[in-house]
Amino acid sequence: MKKRIIIDMDGVLANIYPTLIAREPMYNNTNTTPEELNGIPDSIAFPNLYEIVTSDHFFRNLPEMNNSQEALKYLHEKYEVLIVSAAMEFANSMNDKLAWLMEHYPFIRCEQVVFCGRKDIIEADIIIDDHPKNLSVFKGKRYIFTQPHNIKINDPDYIRINGWDEITQLL
Amino acid sequence: MKKRIIIDMDGVLANIYPTLIAREPMYNNTNTTPEELNGIPDSIAFPNLYEIVTSDHFFRNLPEMNNSQEALKYLHEKYEVLIVSAAMEFANSMNDKLAWLMEHYPFIRCEQVVFCGRKDIIEADIIIDDHPKNLSVFKGKRYIFTQPHNIKINDPDYIRINGWDEITQLL
Repeated sequence: MKKRIIIDMDGVLANIYPTLIAREPMYNNTNTTPEELNGIPDSIAFPNLYEIVTSDHFFRNLPEMNNSQEALKYLHEKYEVLIVSAAMEFANSMNDKLAWLMEHYPFIRCEQVVFCGRKDIIEADIIIDDHPKNLSVFKGKRYIFTQPHNIKINDPDYIRINGWDEITQLL
Repeated sequence: MKKRIIIDMDGVLANIYPTLIAREPMYNNTNTTPEELNGIPDSIAFPNLYEIVTSDHFFRNLPEMNNSQEALKYLHEKYEVLIVSAAMEFANSMNDKLAWLMEHYPFIRCEQVVFCGRKDIIEADIIIDDHPKNLSVFKGKRYIFTQPHNIKINDPDYIRINGWDEITQLL
């Protein structure tokens, strides 16, 4: 039986930073460089985070992470893949999120997608996520996907992945 | 620690039949009485099921099941409640479904809601559902909520619940 792997959306499949960096100045007239974000929680780095992600179909038009299509296909063939997103906090994002996934990764069936509030309710063997709050409650093998906000975390319980090109080597 | 209970939406919290019965004649000019639906799968009883449920914000305006507010509140206090709906098959239903839940059961937090394709991926102790396809794959205690389509099922593995007024006695 294939092992079950749960894969996060925002910050793992969908690259949210270019759009956050582009939109934050619309609210506060300051510009942020990617380097300035290292080690800073998104809610601090982007004071208008909630307004940005809840407006203008934010989640429908994000770019995908480099090499994620090929590498997700590789995982899809080797594992039982579930795409799990803590989407409930942004109540109107779900229809857009599902449409985005179906467009960018057409080999994924909608039955493989889960929108929830807490990821510890899902039974699985492996998780790939960028947020320690999701990784820390998971009982299986935990991979932390590098994003600016988590770059200074050095927890021996997590295996770090610096991009989708590394995934076919590690998993 | 509280036991975790997963509760279905359509056919358990939301009463879908009055709206299905009202809308089907818009497509095929025949009228259906509730009695005629007994033991018939919804997809046979309502030949235009997919068109009905994917149009006119079907899921946003459903009536709630009788006594479900008080009884869900009772469960919410006694158990760790998750509302789990196999919503992915109707891609544009999720925003409406979440808004409907928040309106009718305001004590439920959005973190307690899960939209998924398959319910067997959720770790829980108890399930209340009207569909054998969800009950049969569940490992814990299984309650079948009476709806016309399941009324002839007599499976000793399921405890039958005939309405929310029975739930406070049984659970």
